Amino acid sequence: MQYPEPIARLIASYMNLPGIGQKTATRLAFHTIDMKDEVVNEFAKSLLSVKRDLTFCSVCGNITEEDPCNICSDTTRDRSTILVVEEPKDVMALEKMREYRGLYHVLHGVLSPMEGTGPEDINIPSLIQRLHNDEVTEVILATNATTEGEATAMYLSRLIKPAGIKVTRLAHGLSVGSDIEYADEVTLLKAVEGRREL
Amino acid sequence: MQYPEPIARLIASYMNLPGIGQKTATRLAFHTIDMKDEVVNEFAKSLLSVKRDLTFCSVCGNITEEDPCNICSDTTRDRSTILVVEEPKDVMALEKMREYRGLYHVLHGVLSPMEGTGPEDINIPSLIQRLHNDEVTEVILATNATTEGEATAMYLSRLIKPAGIKVTRLAHGLSVGSDIEYADEVTLLKAVEGRREL
Repeated sequence: MQYPEPIARLIASYMNLPGIGQKTATRLAFHTIDMKDEVVNEFAKSLLSVKRDLTFCSVCGNITEEDPCNICSDTTRDRSTILVVEEPKDVMALEKMREYRGLYHVLHGVLSPMEGTGPEDINIPSLIQRLHNDEVTEVILATNATTEGEATAMYLSRLIKPAGIKVTRLAHGLSVGSDIEYADEVTLLKAVEGRREL
Repeated sequence: MQYPEPIARLIASYMNLPGIGQKTATRLAFHTIDMKDEVVNEFAKSLLSVKRDLTFCSVCGNITEEDPCNICSDTTRDRSTILVVEEPKDVMALEKMREYRGLYHVLHGVLSPMEGTGPEDINIPSLIQRLHNDEVTEVILATNATTEGEATAMYLSRLIKPAGIKVTRLAHGLSVGSDIEYADEVTLLKAVEGRREL
């Protein structure tokens, strides 16, 4: 016996999510059948809403309900600093620390010659445009510490520095609370390189 | 900064699913934003459909699109045998082997004095009703090999046997392809108890 059509379709939908295979999708589908009507309705509505009500900020590329986003339109923020990240969720993570008061720029990806992603395929032209127009004095590169992230940071640095704008990179080193014993070699190397005088 | 309202709602919805916490829900929500419109629409539709288009078979309690379900209404099946399971997904699992040709009965739970689940709270009365009406000669108890599953099987056995109906239980033992080395004691005990002459 096949699963009834509605269950089979829901299993297929769950399998579109990352890290969810056939078995987990089946478990989730059967759990969905047992969930309250209101909860499932709300789930379906929130799925549609996230596609319909969200857009990308035309200034910084962040996900937002209104364009420009509430960070770009916040006049109390420091407009002389732009922090460049790969993805919108990086903005959310950085905003959680409630310390940074400058602006952001979301690249929506990284340079990757292997996958054919060049500067024009991610939000680099709009970043350069912003540097021309605005009173920016510092660009903080916060791409991830991966090969592509580092290469993208390097590329941006060479592109921006000649314009006389200060370019910085987030510090890499040991996580707060982590054991040296368990840190990987590259992190340790970065931690030694970036040591500070006490 | 909080997540924009639509993302926060979707994260909350994902967190209603079993085994999905804050971090996974957030990852799934951001992945949803990047998914194609059609895929998300189909996901939302299949969620609603699974609640709207599925019902429980009034005869056996299985999940079905039509009542009675296509197993109960299949006249080619052996109506003298009823296989009792805990949940609809157990029916799907058993049907996959394409060997059993009798009927099913889904209890939708097990007896559990700890949680106050008595015979009236699960589909036991409807099972007894079927035994009165139908030409049933054998009831196969396929509740899970847990404490509650075993207790439910024992309870049903004592209830049904006096009516002169044969009551059997699925064999417990080593999984096919498994190593004795890694089997737990209870499974090994069941395997020895249930040994067969070659």
